[in-house]
Amino acid sequence: MVNACRACESCEEGAENYCARVVLTYNSRDRDGAVTRGGYSDMVVADARFVVRFPDALPLDAAAPLLCAGATVYAPMRRHALGAPGSHVGVIGLGGLGHVAVKFARAFGAGKVTVISTSPAKREEALERLGADAFVLSTDAAEMKAAAGTMHGIVNTASAAASLHPYLALLKPHGKMILLGIPDKPLQVSAFALIGGGKTLAGSCMASISETQEMLDFAAEHGVAADVEVIGAGEVNAAMERLAKGDVRYRFVIDVGNTLKAD
Amino acid sequence: MVNACRACESCEEGAENYCARVVLTYNSRDRDGAVTRGGYSDMVVADARFVVRFPDALPLDAAAPLLCAGATVYAPMRRHALGAPGSHVGVIGLGGLGHVAVKFARAFGAGKVTVISTSPAKREEALERLGADAFVLSTDAAEMKAAAGTMHGIVNTASAAASLHPYLALLKPHGKMILLGIPDKPLQVSAFALIGGGKTLAGSCMASISETQEMLDFAAEHGVAADVEVIGAGEVNAAMERLAKGDVRYRFVIDVGNTLKAD
Repeated sequence: MVNACRACESCEEGAENYCARVVLTYNSRDRDGAVTRGGYSDMVVADARFVVRFPDALPLDAAAPLLCAGATVYAPMRRHALGAPGSHVGVIGLGGLGHVAVKFARAFGAGKVTVISTSPAKREEALERLGADAFVLSTDAAEMKAAAGTMHGIVNTASAAASLHPYLALLKPHGKMILLGIPDKPLQVSAFALIGGGKTLAGSCMASISETQEMLDFAAEHGVAADVEVIGAGEVNAAMERLAKGDVRYRFVIDVGNTLKAD
Repeated sequence: MVNACRACESCEEGAENYCARVVLTYNSRDRDGAVTRGGYSDMVVADARFVVRFPDALPLDAAAPLLCAGATVYAPMRRHALGAPGSHVGVIGLGGLGHVAVKFARAFGAGKVTVISTSPAKREEALERLGADAFVLSTDAAEMKAAAGTMHGIVNTASAAASLHPYLALLKPHGKMILLGIPDKPLQVSAFALIGGGKTLAGSCMASISETQEMLDFAAEHGVAADVEVIGAGEVNAAMERLAKGDVRYRFVIDVGNTLKAD
């Protein structure tokens, strides 16, 4: 986001991301009427309130995706205390959001980080590449059963409208699931799946400016960044096609400064 | 509850109410094989760990229902910080749980307590009898719209499987709904209804022994008790029929000591 109304209660409380008139970075109409272009521009003018300080210690390319994926997972994980030292955190889905959630959970000091995925191909990736402690194939009933009731919190980045029950069953009593993906269809949740174990389902969208700054500072201190593939502006269309197929580990970053020239 | 396994992680952490082998007060099988009779007995023997100290300041009759309804609403309200001084708390449903939730919210120092109900007859009751600050008739679109986005937290005691969306819309960003009723059918929740405002849906069931003791001590200090109708053991069948019709304000209490004699 690059602007908001700055007058409502959400804005006054520093939760600009929940302002009803928030101006998104891309393809949104700013308060002066201009249409925002996001990162697809060689220059962006923004109000100081919506600008964050980028720590010197962070690489520009690998940390660029933190300014959405990183903030989106960091803010609710902090708010709901996921990843407390010694705790067991599950991450559903290993994509742009999920791989950063694994890194933040480790940096928070979580005792165990488990990746849960429908794709067997993600097992090696989760364990070897990202350093997760365990992997659960969600289509394997025996693996799901073995992991039932073991997690303090789950970051759910999946956007398929699968039933939440098998995943809620992985939580311990008082466990919390953070919901970040938006499926097309309504979720089916039996009240008992939440009431039986005193469990919590919490939605979250982006992050406030102060949470975003806190996330960047934390990432710099703990060496957290995204796994990226840097492309030039001329490769955007091909990258979009690969993105639609999920063929990227895990975010494309466009090197605007070196490859996009203003007319 | 009158017993639990006392060995699992929930028991060790003092969350006996979420022990998988919890023994309920009524019609449950205790560890010695005996079937529990709950309050329908002239004498109950229980392990000291599952006994609470009943404060002298509390009336035996009006405070008896706190040992379920009171604990059931108090524990999640405290855990999720509902009713913080100055905050706006909504209570959906004005029955055995709901009327006690109104009283606790007021005792916590909430700035405003609003009862939300499908029944117009509850308006006067909520405002005059229970001292709620406002009443919203949930079938009145204009009243619901006027209350949208105003509540920090909602205690949902309804057990009808209505869509949660109109009620979630009453919450401010970061608002929390505590789910206590168990509808027959799964709840329909679109992920966006939670994600859009960073909202939380939290289930809860009963309370731990330590939370129950804390609730009783708090109730004694703040003069919280249930509104009850005291009956004799001989009136139980008639009371059950009235209960099925919702014809009680708000809990029946059986005067066992004076009216139930052992064979």
